[in-house]
Amino acid sequence: MSWRAGTLEQQRFTSKTVQGLLGSKLWQRTLRRIAAVSDKSYHMTPQQFREYGRAVVDWIADYYERIEALPVMSQVKPGAIRRALPPEAPREPEDFRAMLRDIDKVILPGVTHWQSPNFFAYFPANASGPAILGDLLSSALGVQGMLWATSPACTELETQVLDWLVSMLGLPAKFLSSGAGGGVIQDTASSSSLCAMLAARERATKLQSNRRGCGDRLVAYTSNQAHSSLEKAAMVAGIGADNLRLVDVDGRFAMRPELLAEHIAKDREAGLLPFFVSATVGTTSSNALDPLPAIGGICRENSLWFHVDAAMSGTAALCPEFRYVHDGLDYADSYTFNPHKWMFTNFDCNCFYVADRKALIDTLSILPEYLRNQATESGEVFDYRDWHIPLGRRFRSLKLWFVIRYYGLEGLQFHVRRHVALAQQFFNWVKQDERFEIVAPAPLNLVCFRYRGPDQSNEELMDRLNRSGDLYLTHTRLQGRFTLRFCVGQTNTEERHVRHAWKRIQEEAAKL
Amino acid sequence: MSWRAGTLEQQRFTSKTVQGLLGSKLWQRTLRRIAAVSDKSYHMTPQQFREYGRAVVDWIADYYERIEALPVMSQVKPGAIRRALPPEAPREPEDFRAMLRDIDKVILPGVTHWQSPNFFAYFPANASGPAILGDLLSSALGVQGMLWATSPACTELETQVLDWLVSMLGLPAKFLSSGAGGGVIQDTASSSSLCAMLAARERATKLQSNRRGCGDRLVAYTSNQAHSSLEKAAMVAGIGADNLRLVDVDGRFAMRPELLAEHIAKDREAGLLPFFVSATVGTTSSNALDPLPAIGGICRENSLWFHVDAAMSGTAALCPEFRYVHDGLDYADSYTFNPHKWMFTNFDCNCFYVADRKALIDTLSILPEYLRNQATESGEVFDYRDWHIPLGRRFRSLKLWFVIRYYGLEGLQFHVRRHVALAQQFFNWVKQDERFEIVAPAPLNLVCFRYRGPDQSNEELMDRLNRSGDLYLTHTRLQGRFTLRFCVGQTNTEERHVRHAWKRIQEEAAKL
Repeated sequence: MSWRAGTLEQQRFTSKTVQGLLGSKLWQRTLRRIAAVSDKSYHMTPQQFREYGRAVVDWIADYYERIEALPVMSQVKPGAIRRALPPEAPREPEDFRAMLRDIDKVILPGVTHWQSPNFFAYFPANASGPAILGDLLSSALGVQGMLWATSPACTELETQVLDWLVSMLGLPAKFLSSGAGGGVIQDTASSSSLCAMLAARERATKLQSNRRGCGDRLVAYTSNQAHSSLEKAAMVAGIGADNLRLVDVDGRFAMRPELLAEHIAKDREAGLLPFFVSATVGTTSSNALDPLPAIGGICRENSLWFHVDAAMSGTAALCPEFRYVHDGLDYADSYTFNPHKWMFTNFDCNCFYVADRKALIDTLSILPEYLRNQATESGEVFDYRDWHIPLGRRFRSLKLWFVIRYYGLEGLQFHVRRHVALAQQFFNWVKQDERFEIVAPAPLNLVCFRYRGPDQSNEELMDRLNRSGDLYLTHTRLQGRFTLRFCVGQTNTEERHVRHAWKRIQEEAAKL
Repeated sequence: MSWRAGTLEQQRFTSKTVQGLLGSKLWQRTLRRIAAVSDKSYHMTPQQFREYGRAVVDWIADYYERIEALPVMSQVKPGAIRRALPPEAPREPEDFRAMLRDIDKVILPGVTHWQSPNFFAYFPANASGPAILGDLLSSALGVQGMLWATSPACTELETQVLDWLVSMLGLPAKFLSSGAGGGVIQDTASSSSLCAMLAARERATKLQSNRRGCGDRLVAYTSNQAHSSLEKAAMVAGIGADNLRLVDVDGRFAMRPELLAEHIAKDREAGLLPFFVSATVGTTSSNALDPLPAIGGICRENSLWFHVDAAMSGTAALCPEFRYVHDGLDYADSYTFNPHKWMFTNFDCNCFYVADRKALIDTLSILPEYLRNQATESGEVFDYRDWHIPLGRRFRSLKLWFVIRYYGLEGLQFHVRRHVALAQQFFNWVKQDERFEIVAPAPLNLVCFRYRGPDQSNEELMDRLNRSGDLYLTHTRLQGRFTLRFCVGQTNTEERHVRHAWKRIQEEAAKL
């Protein structure tokens, strides 16, 4: 089966020798020998795929059955995983079973179990069976969706499912693809927010920044509680972080619109060009809700692009009772939320909407000859490569489609409500224990609290809990104080997990 | 099983009513009822996952067994797939079996089969069994690798496998993580090239562009045959497409270094700031190889960042006899190639290397409080979120690790050689048929040719072949002429497929 070119290995080739080689007798022989070899060489055959695929599926089911027995946060020291790996790649093929065994032996000790029901850290990145299997089909089909023409279903299913989500979340109709707007799947809210900023930049400069560079007069705005990706976007887009004004917040950590208006007026007076505002629905630190109506009004008055980042909390709008978080979204030019955070769809799956898709496409479109095709020229189709930075794109709508169908709107609502209910229960428990204090409002599924004591005690409390492996929670700093964050959103989190977490927090606090 | 909040559905909520709601008797009841419901509600249980997972694995194996019977290029008209989908999302959960049936019924007609051995279009995006199963594990583990601390194995396996590839491809040792350099997995070469340009921008402006915006004096260079992503990067990065000089090429479509030097000198004289050059190893149009040593020398003399884009063709360097394509890479500051094109690793998997990782990290690093942790502060670990634009990142090295181990270096070399051999065979067939002409050198696995006749005949030939469903090939324009591209790189392409493709091309040409 294996064909080896010993003579090839030993030579030092140059462009010239290779050009000779390709026509040489050696290569003619090579060609004949390679052509004669069965297509099964080295490849995993469909029959083997059935066998190994089942083994992997069973491994995954086993993993989810035993996940609660594993320490949530990996306990390894830097370098430990690398030391368990060979220094060089194998020369000869290895057995698939050995590779699967290494997942347990080598990889799992270094895994922090984001899918554990005892994961309360950061924001969730919750997965589910239908998402994983939808994603598996996407991997196997292996299509590129850069153009409509490179796989029409990849584009059309995406457009349709993103339209579905407009009604599921009660978003403004202007984000529907049937009008001038539309949605697209991106990898992360970081990328979406960057694209929003770019489209805003080009709208403000009449596409001149794209051509001649973006100058140094553009100014963007967000709150000092906004996600770090906004600062990164300002850097990437050539705006400069100093030209992103971080507007101060109120006692609830929400942007103060009157300060935003002041900043804008001052910048205009200074001869600068305000062009972009990003508001947050559920900040990363504390889940604060910026007042969209007031901010949106200011944007409209000043003709600024209004972007809304609802990375995790947008999902809450599946339930009518939480839909108020989007009040004011009518003003928005663009909106982003992540089904890969709190909607059971494994990473990556960010949904990005624009009210005026032409503004986005004009900003990011490039059409080289090798991508020209009749469907594109007809103008009848979307070519999603013009809606984001990467050219290549996988069939990500499959997993989202599977999740929505498997759960139904009803099932999604059930779980979002449960997560909020559990977080509110935790909120009440914390409030009733006088050793602790609540540090910020908890409108949804994130509770910010601290042990009444110095920052160091809180840090110690967190470290002890995380090192115990029983649960995983992380921190932020609010009004200068080290604050613990407890976010309920993992797919399989039930009341017993939250109850146990609170018990463990109390136990460790008692030892401080 | 299903809990419904009828009363909730009918209300119009505001922030105020919700704050009231959360403490209300209704919600207290809701909370108790939700808490009482089994964790199995709506979720796919591990037991169901075993069953449905097997069904999907079998579906995939069947798909690969019958893929040659399907028309390679989808034959649907715009809108056909959307019309087959319901206008609104389902309210109630659906059966998983029905969803899987819809893959056949609704999705497959709209799929262009990138994994068909009769796919010769664009560049390949070849997948394989080990990659698909490695990716499945990544979906199921669902970890975030933004920081070392958020899942150490995700970072360390990636670093190790990217170090492996340095020796597998014979890349300069400066790209190893053990020195000052290192590699990272990104989604696409578009994103990598953008990051290279950003790091170059910051090196040239001493990190001032990140702070204050990038001004309008920066100038970048690439050839007029370079990938469109370079122009997009110049737009995104605030440089402006007009400040990206497209250097002319020679008769082999390779950049003319003496013209590059002239451009740079002229721009310097005009008071501009040249900062970045991107050379291509295997251009998208014709697989042209830019002369890296000459270009690299010019970059060194002028202290410009030298980026090398080897998106598809870098994989050829697995074989010593093709490694010459990288001659001159010693000069490079950054390098990118895509295992998701020609190395059997399903999308997305782009490898990006830098010689000086500090330059990249300083450009893209942002450290908000909620991401601070001891491992990061110690400086002992890589936090890959600082190596690219997105914050979130999935465990992509798993699939790459599986591919390298399953095939072994030997198996990968076998298939790369076979693809080159088959393309060269095709090249010879075309050359021997006087109705056709070869339009560009074919150093590896891409053959550019045309029917001796007007552009329209070539376009017609291509359309007929693609509409037949027997094979899929695409075009470009070289020296102004419509040119057919035939790229051999699909995982399962054997001699019989190339032979049949050539036969079909001849048949259709005879009808012109």
